[in-house]
Amino acid sequence: MPKDHAPPTLYILNPNSTAAVTAGLDAALAPMRGHSHIPIVCLDLPGGPPGVQTQQDIARVTLPLLAQAQALVPSAGAFVIACFSDPGLALLREQLPRPVLGIGEAGVLTALTLGQRFGVVAILPGSIPRHHRRWAEMGVAARLAGERALGLGVTELGDRGQTLARALAVGRQLRDDDGAEVLVLGCAGMAWLREPLQQALGMPVVEPTLAAAAMALGRISWRDAA
Amino acid sequence: MPKDHAPPTLYILNPNSTAAVTAGLDAALAPMRGHSHIPIVCLDLPGGPPGVQTQQDIARVTLPLLAQAQALVPSAGAFVIACFSDPGLALLREQLPRPVLGIGEAGVLTALTLGQRFGVVAILPGSIPRHHRRWAEMGVAARLAGERALGLGVTELGDRGQTLARALAVGRQLRDDDGAEVLVLGCAGMAWLREPLQQALGMPVVEPTLAAAAMALGRISWRDAA
Amino acid sequence: MPKDHAPPTLYILNPNSTAAVTAGLDAALAPMRGHSHIPIVCLDLPGGPPGVQTQQDIARVTLPLLAQAQALVPSAGAFVIACFSDPGLALLREQLPRPVLGIGEAGVLTALTLGQRFGVVAILPGSIPRHHRRWAEMGVAARLAGERALGLGVTELGDRGQTLARALAVGRQLRDDDGAEVLVLGCAGMAWLREPLQQALGMPVVEPTLAAAAMALGRISWRDAA
Amino acid sequence: MPKDHAPPTLYILNPNSTAAVTAGLDAALAPMRGHSHIPIVCLDLPGGPPGVQTQQDIARVTLPLLAQAQALVPSAGAFVIACFSDPGLALLREQLPRPVLGIGEAGVLTALTLGQRFGVVAILPGSIPRHHRRWAEMGVAARLAGERALGLGVTELGDRGQTLARALAVGRQLRDDDGAEVLVLGCAGMAWLREPLQQALGMPVVEPTLAAAAMALGRISWRDAA
Amino acid sequence: MPKDHAPPTLYILNPNSTAAVTAGLDAALAPMRGHSHIPIVCLDLPGGPPGVQTQQDIARVTLPLLAQAQALVPSAGAFVIACFSDPGLALLREQLPRPVLGIGEAGVLTALTLGQRFGVVAILPGSIPRHHRRWAEMGVAARLAGERALGLGVTELGDRGQTLARALAVGRQLRDDDGAEVLVLGCAGMAWLREPLQQALGMPVVEPTLAAAAMALGRISWRDAA
Amino acid sequence: MPKDHAPPTLYILNPNSTAAVTAGLDAALAPMRGHSHIPIVCLDLPGGPPGVQTQQDIARVTLPLLAQAQALVPSAGAFVIACFSDPGLALLREQLPRPVLGIGEAGVLTALTLGQRFGVVAILPGSIPRHHRRWAEMGVAARLAGERALGLGVTELGDRGQTLARALAVGRQLRDDDGAEVLVLGCAGMAWLREPLQQALGMPVVEPTLAAAAMALGRISWRDAA
Repeated sequence: MPKDHAPPTLYILNPNSTAAVTAGLDAALAPMRGHSHIPIVCLDLPGGPPGVQTQQDIARVTLPLLAQAQALVPSAGAFVIACFSDPGLALLREQLPRPVLGIGEAGVLTALTLGQRFGVVAILPGSIPRHHRRWAEMGVAARLAGERALGLGVTELGDRGQTLARALAVGRQLRDDDGAEVLVLGCAGMAWLREPLQQALGMPVVEPTLAAAAMALGRISWRDAA
Repeated sequence: MPKDHAPPTLYILNPNSTAAVTAGLDAALAPMRGHSHIPIVCLDLPGGPPGVQTQQDIARVTLPLLAQAQALVPSAGAFVIACFSDPGLALLREQLPRPVLGIGEAGVLTALTLGQRFGVVAILPGSIPRHHRRWAEMGVAARLAGERALGLGVTELGDRGQTLARALAVGRQLRDDDGAEVLVLGCAGMAWLREPLQQALGMPVVEPTLAAAAMALGRISWRDAA
Repeated sequence: MPKDHAPPTLYILNPNSTAAVTAGLDAALAPMRGHSHIPIVCLDLPGGPPGVQTQQDIARVTLPLLAQAQALVPSAGAFVIACFSDPGLALLREQLPRPVLGIGEAGVLTALTLGQRFGVVAILPGSIPRHHRRWAEMGVAARLAGERALGLGVTELGDRGQTLARALAVGRQLRDDDGAEVLVLGCAGMAWLREPLQQALGMPVVEPTLAAAAMALGRISWRDAA
Repeated sequence: MPKDHAPPTLYILNPNSTAAVTAGLDAALAPMRGHSHIPIVCLDLPGGPPGVQTQQDIARVTLPLLAQAQALVPSAGAFVIACFSDPGLALLREQLPRPVLGIGEAGVLTALTLGQRFGVVAILPGSIPRHHRRWAEMGVAARLAGERALGLGVTELGDRGQTLARALAVGRQLRDDDGAEVLVLGCAGMAWLREPLQQALGMPVVEPTLAAAAMALGRISWRDAA
Repeated sequence: MPKDHAPPTLYILNPNSTAAVTAGLDAALAPMRGHSHIPIVCLDLPGGPPGVQTQQDIARVTLPLLAQAQALVPSAGAFVIACFSDPGLALLREQLPRPVLGIGEAGVLTALTLGQRFGVVAILPGSIPRHHRRWAEMGVAARLAGERALGLGVTELGDRGQTLARALAVGRQLRDDDGAEVLVLGCAGMAWLREPLQQALGMPVVEPTLAAAAMALGRISWRDAA
Repeated sequence: MPKDHAPPTLYILNPNSTAAVTAGLDAALAPMRGHSHIPIVCLDLPGGPPGVQTQQDIARVTLPLLAQAQALVPSAGAFVIACFSDPGLALLREQLPRPVLGIGEAGVLTALTLGQRFGVVAILPGSIPRHHRRWAEMGVAARLAGERALGLGVTELGDRGQTLARALAVGRQLRDDDGAEVLVLGCAGMAWLREPLQQALGMPVVEPTLAAAAMALGRISWRDAA
């Protein structure tokens, strides 16, 4: 905890260098700021890749992410790693004297409170095996209804109409064919999809950065409890 | 969400009638109030049992708890059921148009972000099989290192020195014999134990009402996100 | 055990108030009476709901069911709760000095002796998540091939031709798409479906009240073994 | 089902050649005969080993057991294989037109209705890995609290005082160290231990041949239900 | 280990009597011979069935397989049981002083190094439940994406064009509908399918006899390490 | 596969810079060289840490390990990452056109063929939670009997007498208290312990680099099978 009287900050670390994603996160977190005194600051990773999509991307951002976080420790109350693959989560937890949450982990744990079986809307098919390893590692794979990918490239994702249409199709499959009762958005940059998906599908949709931020704010607060 | 401009309230429902437990919860939640604009109100259940320890206690509080919550819906942002057995959790989720969290569930899910294997400090040995059913139902039993009971009666729990000594002994067994990396306090009324346990054992200890409150505050905030 | 010389009775408790369901159970159990000296008595729950379909229904029948059973203890050898959601099972086991079986639990355990993966024919889609929680709690979810619902309302269930047609369609999906080798009827009131389904699908079908009654009769007999 | 009017018989097949074990089974089943019209006949396997303790014993009895059962089919209602390793269970189920139960499987499934976590009292340490494979195959290993062996040889088992003392010690370990709420006797020849163990330990103890016989009697009865 | 200086032999035991299958295995293993000094000898089981497809086939080959292997011990370095159902695996491990591998087990364990979720291409639908029991017993069922059968009879399997076409269709379903990242050929006699399947589907395909032989050669080598 | 006629090499990559560990691996692999034509070359990682013990060590070696391997691809048949934490395994598999095995994964998979429940002898207690995550991710945690650490520092490990004594004590606990039937050495540098442990404990002990090398040699051989 910061020893002085400045309130500790919750840092949301976007491990890619795409400012638009960081801006999207920042906008998505606005309602939480309305309810909390704790400052929430979203940062991207200068020099990071435009997106984190492969094991190589993950390997490349891990140590820079640690360095970025270490420099922020004095003013930090907690950190959220805002990439659904939770790059560097175990490392930052080992090395930092502050709580660290990952949005993949927190998104799924939150989904477990909203339905017995969760579905994941991934961006790329190639991420699904990596995610499956993660649900297994977390010990929650028995609660997974299924995971399906939008299968859209970066350019296509910019077309919100097309992306929403595809997300609705995938969400319906997860709900109707796989038995999901709750969906998790499998990427930090899809916050705008939460509400329209939720309305159209009639089921809860978890935006994982919001889920992680809520858990992180709690962790900052508890520290004062001693 | 309340339609008017009064901020929605987070109701922490203690399903027993022991005002001292409710007061303890209220005190434990103080630091969270310092960081959030959302009012947090702790209530006990008039006419409830002095404690919820058996399946019969659970059966008896379930419908009164629902009635209590239903009356609060207009001003409610979310509800937390502040009993580690999560009585009525599925029922309130089915019947209420607001998020409902249970402290047993939220405490364990939060512990999953603090260590690979969690230990539970229960009050009574007789609760352990019921909790085991719950971890299995949640699909997280593979993450359980072990659960052990203080084995203290209500009168004895009032003796804080004795209770702390017993909790330390149980915590050491969970850490050293069972391999727990994080502990969860298996009762709503043990918040004062968190900090001394944490210090003495050198491992994180989750107070489950704080864990549930953090998740619930997030859920209230997200509703504004649409 | 009853202390006098009257044979202990197996009570089959239908926790709803629909006499036709109770009569159907009574008829279904006829062949077991032909093989056993132990009286089998089927009762409905006066004042219970017409059917048990929601968490609220479950909450409402739990304590009345306990009261009904407690009054029967002197003449009882064992109890079967004849509702696939096993309402009050943990409670009655805690409070009664007699064996208590639930048809959901016993139906599935019996299915485990008839095939490696079981399918469940539910009435309503809304019950499936509740059942999934139950299979997880029982620790047998790895043996589940799938669960699918007839999706028929109460009035439609009265039309046996339509109900059988729908059950055959659902059973074929469970067998051919999901890989079930044995089916469990997910309701106390579908006993008449067992034989035609079994014949048409060429696979074993478990009627759960018969399954529970068999286990309960055994438990009554063993008590004499001391 | 036998086509004539002679009642179908439940055959309890002891796959070893030790008549004393068969006689013990026969005595243990006496109370079930008092409650059922269905004849129960216990047979040993002429030419079988004195006991079934190794994979080699299992391999040697499998085909003779099938041959013995096949010859009994005309008068049989169902078969119980009365050896805790369930030798030949999958084979007899494949080849016989009658229900076949194994006491290992039925004993454990019955224990699942008597406690959340079961303990197994084995005779020999060398059988425990084989049993672990079986609980895993059955998909119920998450419910296992532990398995411990008496570690007594055949001669020593004949000394009932010593055997009971050892079973009590092992049962206390399973209850107190491993957290078992119910015990299963891991052998067909320990029926006399059930009642004294149950009394001394204050917990239910399943005699697996009784458990299998109850399920088998049910299966015979249901056949008449069509 | 053989005490003399003749190199220990790896025996590949085909538990059926079809010489063409053994010849196919022998051809499939040719590349491994090019890299290893250890002799690899493939044998069929004189008097065995033409194929091992049922529990009865398994029961019938088990003891002859043991006898065959026991006679080979003096010259043996290790044994591979070349039938996907691993008949007699536990028995041979118990009785023989040499390493014993089964191709079902080794094929699946090897697949776990090639993808997060594996698919199995079985010959007959009737084998699938038996295989499911095996994956559960091995504790690896959570990694199974699915298993599907060619559904071709012995005569049809001889038509390589038809068999390949069917294997491609099944492989595509496992990959696209079930999410398999790696396939295992569920039979000893399909080695010729590995390469064309791998090429056409763009995913790794495990030939289980090669997988078992690799593990067995390692075990022979390590023995020299002492 | 190398396109020329030079035999492909199996590279054993020790991701630390301690030449003594590499030399120990090299010696341990000697017997495998006696049986295989495939060259086996052990390399350490210049600039790597003296040992890989933390998440930070893992993060630091991952990209250099990839670079080292990429430079070796032209002559490589396969790679083994010779560190029990399998650093960079997913990354190298993603980026390299050659089979990549990790000794943690291969060691445990091989243990699954030697006993129903495996025990792991770790060096440091701090590695155990990381390993638990790995067994969960691999989906084999149900087969784990337990993991215990030697708790010896680098200097102490140099004292072979003390290390063996400690390994024997830990191995006995895993065998007798935890029920392990087979042990896995949880480090690349403990090969010399295998034989004395195996002899003294009377149970198989897996040296994980040998296990991985065997699987890797097989993978090199199969490539020729097309």
